Amino acid sequence: MKAIEKSIGVVPPHSLTFGQSPREMILESGARLGPVTVVYETYGRLDRKGANAILITHPFTCDAHAAGQRAADDRRRGWWDGAIGPGRMFDTDRYFIISSNVLGGCGGSTGPSSLDPATGRPYGLRFPIVTIGDMVRAQKRLIDHLGIERLLAVAGGSMGGMQALKWAIDYPRSVAACIPIATCARSSAQAIALNEVGRQAIYADPCWNRGDYEKRRPPAAGLGVARMVGHISYMSDPSMRAKFGRRLQDRSALGYDFGTDFRVESYLRHRGGAFPSRFDANSYLYITKALDYFDLTAGKDSLADALATVEAACLLISFTSDWLYPPRQSEEIVGALVANNIDVTYVNVPSTYGHDAFLIETEKMAPVVSEFLARVFREEV
Amino acid sequence: MKAIEKSIGVVPPHSLTFGQSPREMILESGARLGPVTVVYETYGRLDRKGANAILITHPFTCDAHAAGQRAADDRRRGWWDGAIGPGRMFDTDRYFIISSNVLGGCGGSTGPSSLDPATGRPYGLRFPIVTIGDMVRAQKRLIDHLGIERLLAVAGGSMGGMQALKWAIDYPRSVAACIPIATCARSSAQAIALNEVGRQAIYADPCWNRGDYEKRRPPAAGLGVARMVGHISYMSDPSMRAKFGRRLQDRSALGYDFGTDFRVESYLRHRGGAFPSRFDANSYLYITKALDYFDLTAGKDSLADALATVEAACLLISFTSDWLYPPRQSEEIVGALVANNIDVTYVNVPSTYGHDAFLIETEKMAPVVSEFLARVFREEV
Repeated sequence: MKAIEKSIGVVPPHSLTFGQSPREMILESGARLGPVTVVYETYGRLDRKGANAILITHPFTCDAHAAGQRAADDRRRGWWDGAIGPGRMFDTDRYFIISSNVLGGCGGSTGPSSLDPATGRPYGLRFPIVTIGDMVRAQKRLIDHLGIERLLAVAGGSMGGMQALKWAIDYPRSVAACIPIATCARSSAQAIALNEVGRQAIYADPCWNRGDYEKRRPPAAGLGVARMVGHISYMSDPSMRAKFGRRLQDRSALGYDFGTDFRVESYLRHRGGAFPSRFDANSYLYITKALDYFDLTAGKDSLADALATVEAACLLISFTSDWLYPPRQSEEIVGALVANNIDVTYVNVPSTYGHDAFLIETEKMAPVVSEFLARVFREEV
Repeated sequence: MKAIEKSIGVVPPHSLTFGQSPREMILESGARLGPVTVVYETYGRLDRKGANAILITHPFTCDAHAAGQRAADDRRRGWWDGAIGPGRMFDTDRYFIISSNVLGGCGGSTGPSSLDPATGRPYGLRFPIVTIGDMVRAQKRLIDHLGIERLLAVAGGSMGGMQALKWAIDYPRSVAACIPIATCARSSAQAIALNEVGRQAIYADPCWNRGDYEKRRPPAAGLGVARMVGHISYMSDPSMRAKFGRRLQDRSALGYDFGTDFRVESYLRHRGGAFPSRFDANSYLYITKALDYFDLTAGKDSLADALATVEAACLLISFTSDWLYPPRQSEEIVGALVANNIDVTYVNVPSTYGHDAFLIETEKMAPVVSEFLARVFREEV
């Protein structure tokens, strides 16, 4: 891959398909799913020893397109473009970066909008519930397919951090380092509540039709409301105050009507309105369910017990103003890893950006991540 | 009024109607509204000097029914029953308590579900936008009607606290004491954002029909989603953890379906589902707009400037875990009052209950409020 203006240029997506009948993937629920397609992108070059591969795991509404452009005229760069590239925190001059769309998503990997081979129509609610663990198992198939025996690191923020943790637990010999950012060991009641409101907003939209809708007639209003709730939880009181305050939008005075008075309303309406064109409502339901179900301690005596198999060196990062996955949740993981004598580094980054900080504060994270990766790489080779 | 078992017994609602054409109420927007009905309840007895009257101003989704029962078989007590009664924080053995439903509400006072005299049909969106100041002006008419020249206190939490502040600013000679609880001098971007999501959920419900719906066919799904968002903002991460955690509802294991897995989901569904039977969707829209518009500093140089007319002794109370109206917002008011040489007391009550604390933590508030009221009463008479 050639760097254009010290950034990643055009990146074509690739895909892997596996699990054709009768060798379907067996999910955590016990349900069978196949064939399974995993869409992925790669940036940088795999070294001869295959020792410099980093898997980036994506947060909720993102996809495989983490960096660069999909086409030369693509104005929208990947969702973590500030973190992945030449000289960046995930340095494509040094490392081979892999980013894939999760199972259940709508960025090309198999999900509820995929065609059900049994009917030739989109799965809709006939798609089985998938978990973070299922997403990770599909990624493992991809890593095997790429011929990588051991990843230098798995790194991700938010839901991506859950996947990183699950990788370190389920495939301890396949991961040298684990970088869970702005994440948790189990979804809190508050996080579940926020997801449930989003789901209820989708259910309430008559266009949803119990999951059977045409692609061009999605439950846009319900999905838009769900997205607005999400945006509020990704920001913080201070970041909203700084970004919007009580500033008016296209008005010099209050309108005394139900039009848009405040800039923050305009922002939410815009974000909620644009979302349905790029994200599938059923995927929204399935992925929120995977988030809610995420609980490393389920069936375990303690979090330390849940993390007992981990061998990877761990770097945890949280952000002071993140109230969706607050620092206490990262601290809990750090404590359990320390109890297990794992090599762990933890940074609680001062930021006012709330949960979104993991996407924005790449400059603050870069020195810590770069140094951590360089050290683990040195120890590996 | 006779105390039954040391609590308030059956309380009949009363009402005042004013503003018949051509003497309509002129609202802050400049619109005219009339006739205006204000429904109210009273507890305790007005003393001979008329010096012991306290006006309780209600929060968003409440009404005039603050304490006691409406009928002997009424199992639902008033919304602040723990705070109002014999020996309680607003002691009905000592004080005469008045509680009225706000303008724009749906508890009997004039609001969007009232009949428009011009058409004989409910106002719907033809109802004018009302403000916290308009609510207070309607209350002033009620206090005049009751023959009370000077209130011992105006007290309320959340939106009730906004009204209390507005009383102290607009009618400085009519209020000896002001008790704003868990409130703010202006709605934050985050609070506006949460309200906007609720409105969008209502707009998205086809039953809403631009505000023209039959009472028995309300936009229940949309209003339910709005209410769920509200409940999340009224609680806190720790209170949801304590109350629900990740406990399952009527299941011994995850269901791997879109049924109700978690208790917190069940709680929200129940609260969202029950709400439309007691609250009007258009009132939800109008009152959230009044909340959003609330900004004491609008057109003023500073908050101290906005509070320049205040003469009342002030007692402000906030709660440590309240993230909807966080303590910093009360501190800001306290600072401005202190700058104005006002007699001000401030307590930041340790609580994990979030914003709901002002309804729940009556035992923690009681000593402070009782003593403050007793002192002001002594100074008055």
